[in-house]
Amino acid sequence: MKATSRLTLALLAAALAVPAMAQFAKPEDAIKYRQSALTVLGTHFARLGAMANGKMAYDAATAAADAEVVAVASRLPWHAFGPGTDKGRETAARPEIWQEGAKFKERGEAMMAQVADKLVPAAKSGSLDELKTAFGPTAKRCKACHDDFRRK
Amino acid sequence: MKATSRLTLALLAAALAVPAMAQFAKPEDAIKYRQSALTVLGTHFARLGAMANGKMAYDAATAAADAEVVAVASRLPWHAFGPGTDKGRETAARPEIWQEGAKFKERGEAMMAQVADKLVPAAKSGSLDELKTAFGPTAKRCKACHDDFRRK
Repeated sequence: MKATSRLTLALLAAALAVPAMAQFAKPEDAIKYRQSALTVLGTHFARLGAMANGKMAYDAATAAADAEVVAVASRLPWHAFGPGTDKGRETAARPEIWQEGAKFKERGEAMMAQVADKLVPAAKSGSLDELKTAFGPTAKRCKACHDDFRRK
Repeated sequence: MKATSRLTLALLAAALAVPAMAQFAKPEDAIKYRQSALTVLGTHFARLGAMANGKMAYDAATAAADAEVVAVASRLPWHAFGPGTDKGRETAARPEIWQEGAKFKERGEAMMAQVADKLVPAAKSGSLDELKTAFGPTAKRCKACHDDFRRK
């Protein structure tokens, strides 16, 4: 599958999932859900990073399995940031998420695109060099959003 | 893809992921991770249930997207129940998980098989009737494990 069609599919899947994602009974459920999705995402992303940075032995099958989880998890958190979900449970989400919604959305889409187009193919390529090349720019996408939208 | 080969792939992916899954720096990280994976799993599974039980309008694309997440998430929690992860953070995990490890493992594998062989194909079939048929037996797999291994 070409990178472009893979991205298209990922964005399509994300779009399709909107109606379901929007349905949380209470704000605290949405907050717990998005924190959980980001924990899963961060855990598997960190493992790819540990391999890319030589802190963990590179294993092609492990990298591919982690990438599979990252691909799915990267699409999940966004729709749990709906209106009214800024409170209800302890959260590091900054009010700017709702005040600058367009920017937040653009950041999320840029991250998903980077993951789908660059990181996942690299992590599945069997090449540590390709993983190294893709990891840094993806980590920068995470950091850019955290810097602006997550409390320290 | 036939159900059998899909299951084989799912179990293979789970097996391949073991080395990575086993690497948590601290027990609390493993506990937080498995709780997060189960929250994601439970959220999407509950949505399939809401559609199956008529509490939410059935939408074939939404069901397929939820099933995709359930398929991945169902494989994640197991390897975060390693030795020494019974403490370190608030957890509903009962000691029987480690005292009756073979039974716990068998329950997890039965759930993954049910998800991969029955629930996912049904949720992707576009047929609400098929989803209804597959949902109940899968929910029973969840409950059987919760009854024995999760604190009330």
